[in-house]
Amino acid sequence: MNNAQTWGETLRLLVELSATAAFALSGVLEAARKRLDAVGVCVVGFLAAFGGGTLRDLLLDKRPFFWVQHVGVMWGVLALCVLAMLFLRNRHFALTERAIQWPDALGLGLFTATGVHQALLLQMPGVVAVLMGLVTGVFGGVLRDIVCNEVPTAFRDHRPYAVVAFAGGWVYVGLWQANTPGWLALLVCVLLTAGLRALALWRNWQLPAWRVD
Amino acid sequence: MNNAQTWGETLRLLVELSATAAFALSGVLEAARKRLDAVGVCVVGFLAAFGGGTLRDLLLDKRPFFWVQHVGVMWGVLALCVLAMLFLRNRHFALTERAIQWPDALGLGLFTATGVHQALLLQMPGVVAVLMGLVTGVFGGVLRDIVCNEVPTAFRDHRPYAVVAFAGGWVYVGLWQANTPGWLALLVCVLLTAGLRALALWRNWQLPAWRVD
Amino acid sequence: MNNAQTWGETLRLLVELSATAAFALSGVLEAARKRLDAVGVCVVGFLAAFGGGTLRDLLLDKRPFFWVQHVGVMWGVLALCVLAMLFLRNRHFALTERAIQWPDALGLGLFTATGVHQALLLQMPGVVAVLMGLVTGVFGGVLRDIVCNEVPTAFRDHRPYAVVAFAGGWVYVGLWQANTPGWLALLVCVLLTAGLRALALWRNWQLPAWRVD
Repeated sequence: MNNAQTWGETLRLLVELSATAAFALSGVLEAARKRLDAVGVCVVGFLAAFGGGTLRDLLLDKRPFFWVQHVGVMWGVLALCVLAMLFLRNRHFALTERAIQWPDALGLGLFTATGVHQALLLQMPGVVAVLMGLVTGVFGGVLRDIVCNEVPTAFRDHRPYAVVAFAGGWVYVGLWQANTPGWLALLVCVLLTAGLRALALWRNWQLPAWRVD
Repeated sequence: MNNAQTWGETLRLLVELSATAAFALSGVLEAARKRLDAVGVCVVGFLAAFGGGTLRDLLLDKRPFFWVQHVGVMWGVLALCVLAMLFLRNRHFALTERAIQWPDALGLGLFTATGVHQALLLQMPGVVAVLMGLVTGVFGGVLRDIVCNEVPTAFRDHRPYAVVAFAGGWVYVGLWQANTPGWLALLVCVLLTAGLRALALWRNWQLPAWRVD
Repeated sequence: MNNAQTWGETLRLLVELSATAAFALSGVLEAARKRLDAVGVCVVGFLAAFGGGTLRDLLLDKRPFFWVQHVGVMWGVLALCVLAMLFLRNRHFALTERAIQWPDALGLGLFTATGVHQALLLQMPGVVAVLMGLVTGVFGGVLRDIVCNEVPTAFRDHRPYAVVAFAGGWVYVGLWQANTPGWLALLVCVLLTAGLRALALWRNWQLPAWRVD
C-alpha cells in the first residue's frame, strides 16, 4: 500500500468517525424527544450511528464490521450518548425538529460517500453502489424512527433527503469512473450531499406533494 | 447445464420478475394511501419488491442478490414506481384495500415458489425450505407495513395469507421429493398458493378469531 | 472433543432450548394481547424465540443457524404456539404485563449467556461479545414489539432490562478471561442476569427518568 492509499484510508476513517458521532447524536435527540429511558436512548443512538453501515456491510457480505474493527468507536459513542443525556437533563431543553437536522445533514453526506466507496471497492455496478450509499446514509435514521414507532422522517416530510444522497452517490460513481483521485471524489460527494441537504433545509424546498382528493 | 435446466432457469427468472412487479405495485399503493412523499413511495415499493427475497438470501447466505445479478430489474422497479405515481396523481384515486389485494395474491404465490426453490437447491431440510418460502412471500409485505407504521396486514386481518403460502410451500417440497420435474412443481405451487389466496379473498374465508372476553 | 466439552455443549443446547420456549411464550402472549390472528401469533412467537439468536448469527456470519441445525426446535415452537393459543382460547384470560415478565426474565438470562459465549468462541473482543449477548437477549423482544407496532418495552419502561444483560455479559467475559470452566461462567451469567432482572421487577427498580419540562 503506498502513501496516498494510506492517507486516503485515514481520511475515510475520519469521515466515518464524524458521521458516526453526528448520527448518534441525532438518535439520542430523537429518543429523548420520545421520552425513552436511558437504555433506550443509548440503543437508538447506536442504531442511528451504526445501523446504516452495518446493514450495508451485511448486504455486501463484508466483515469485520466497522465497529468490530474499531472497538474504540463503540466506547466513544457510548460516552457521547451518556454525555448528551447529562447535558440534556441539566437544562430546560426544547428539542425541536430543527436541532436534529444539522448533524443529520452532515451525517447523510459523510455516510453516503463511505457507502458508495465500499461498494465500488467490491466492483459493484454503479446503481448498486448508489443504493449502498443510500442504505448507509438513510437507513440508520430509518431504523431509529422504526424503533421510535414513527413513519421514517426521510420518507414523509416532503423535503429532499434520500434524493440528495441519490444525487451525491451518482456524482461519486461518475468521478470514480473518470479515474478522479479517491480523496477528491469523496470530498465532492460529501460536500455536495451535505450542502444540497442544508440548502434544501434553508430554502425549504419541497418534493411534489400528493394532490388531496 | 442441459436445455431443460436452462429453460427452467428462464421460467424461474420470469416468475421472479412478475412477482417483483406485483409486490412493488402493492408497496406503492400502500405508501400512497399513507401519503408518504415521492421518495418514500419508491423506497416502500423497493422494500415490498426486494425485501422478502433479500431477507431470504441473507438468511441462506446466498450472493449475489437477485437485484445485484439483474441490475436492470432495479431500473424497471424504479420506472414502475414513478409511472404508478404519475398515474395515481392524474386522476381521482380511491385506493381501497381491495386494489392492493390482487397483485399481492399473485406475488405471494410467485415468491413463495421461488423461496422454497432456492432453499431446496441448497439442500435445506423441508421445514426450512417452507420457512424460506414464507419469508420470501410474506416479509416484503411485512417490511412494507412496518415502515408504514402499521401492524402487518398478514398477521392481523384474520384472512388466510401466510397459511396459504405455508400450504403451497409444503406441496412444492412434496413434489420435489417425489422427483417431479422442476417446472411442474413450480407451476403447481404458484397456482395453488395464488389460487387459494384468491379463493380466500373471494369467499371471505376467516381464520378462527379470539373470543372477546 | 473430550467429555467435558461434549457435556458443556449439551448444557448449552438445553439452555438455548429453555430460553427459546420462554421467549416464544412471551411472543404469543404479546400477540394475543394485540389480538393478532392465529398466523400472527405464531409468527410473533417465532420472531421472539429465534429473532435475537438469528440476528446475532447474521452479525457474526455464523451458519448454519440454530433452527436449521436443530429443525426439531421449530416444530416444538410451533406446537408450543398452538397449545398456548388453545389454552388461552378456552378460558377467560386476563393477559397482564405481569404474565409476560417472568418467562421473559429467564429467557433474557439464558440468551445473553449463549450470545456472549458464541462471540467469545469466535475470538471477538469483550465489548463485541457483550453486545452480541445484548442482541441475543434483547432483540427477539424488540422485533416482537416492532411487529406489534409498539415502542420496544425494553427501551421505554424505565426498568432495568438491557442494563441487566449488559452487566451479566461483562461478568461472563471476565470469568472467561480468568479461565473459569465454561459451564460455571455460563451458569453464573444466567443466574446473575435472570436474578437481577427478577429482583428489579420485584423491588420495582427504576432507571433515572427524564425531568419533565
